[in-house]
Amino acid sequence: MAEQTLFLPPGALSELEEGGALTPKFDADGLVTCVATDEASGEVLMIAHMNAEALKRTIATGEAWYFSRSRGALWKKGETSGHIQRVVEMRIDCDQDAVWIKVEQTGGACHTGRRSCFYRAVPLGKDAPVTLEFRDERVFDPQAVYGGRT
Amino acid sequence: MAEQTLFLPPGALSELEEGGALTPKFDADGLVTCVATDEASGEVLMIAHMNAEALKRTIATGEAWYFSRSRGALWKKGETSGHIQRVVEMRIDCDQDAVWIKVEQTGGACHTGRRSCFYRAVPLGKDAPVTLEFRDERVFDPQAVYGGRT
Repeated sequence: MAEQTLFLPPGALSELEEGGALTPKFDADGLVTCVATDEASGEVLMIAHMNAEALKRTIATGEAWYFSRSRGALWKKGETSGHIQRVVEMRIDCDQDAVWIKVEQTGGACHTGRRSCFYRAVPLGKDAPVTLEFRDERVFDPQAVYGGRT
Repeated sequence: MAEQTLFLPPGALSELEEGGALTPKFDADGLVTCVATDEASGEVLMIAHMNAEALKRTIATGEAWYFSRSRGALWKKGETSGHIQRVVEMRIDCDQDAVWIKVEQTGGACHTGRRSCFYRAVPLGKDAPVTLEFRDERVFDPQAVYGGRT
């Protein structure tokens, strides 16, 4: 379905920033960026993208839908793993090209088995090359959850 | 400076996800996505982009640098407003195309004067059109801080 049938088109910058209408500014690929944080801990769980249909379904159902750029497909978070995201609150940013959802995350958000995709820290105050520090353990076995799928 | 002189190129997916080397996966425009959260409150302050030089400077200095897509320029957060971001921790995600920085934010992150760019909530359980709900007051006067600049 065309974006323009799901949301009103963006207006002038002043309307985007100070208006009360949700008029998402989709990029050339028809996407907005979405950051999902854990409602309880505040931890960033993942960053992904939504097209108009994913955004519409997330708003309507209160469960997170995304658009996979690599697969070119609409995707309900947890449809394979069961690790769904119940959206507690959604925010949109000043120029309406990014959304923030606070979620109750079942299981783990990351396909590698961690709670968050951001399981490695980058040490600061160094020049490259930088050695990453693993911070988070797996909370599920990706082989058991996804089987042969990667 | 070319990206390849600042960071090693990304390897195989297994190396990207489970390796200890920082090998950012810059997109076709040479950018990774960055989400900045408030170190104290956990609130998402902003989502922006970093090119290799911005990422390198952020790591080296512990202060946030970005790349402005609209201006096509490297940009130190707070260079005009004084509202700098001191990076307390940096994380990188599973496929190394997004970074999360926890920051101490001076003043406000948003050029509209709010602490966070995500000052409007999107009500859930509704079909479009959706009316946004303003949640956050201004913490500074953008006219006073930026003058005639928008």
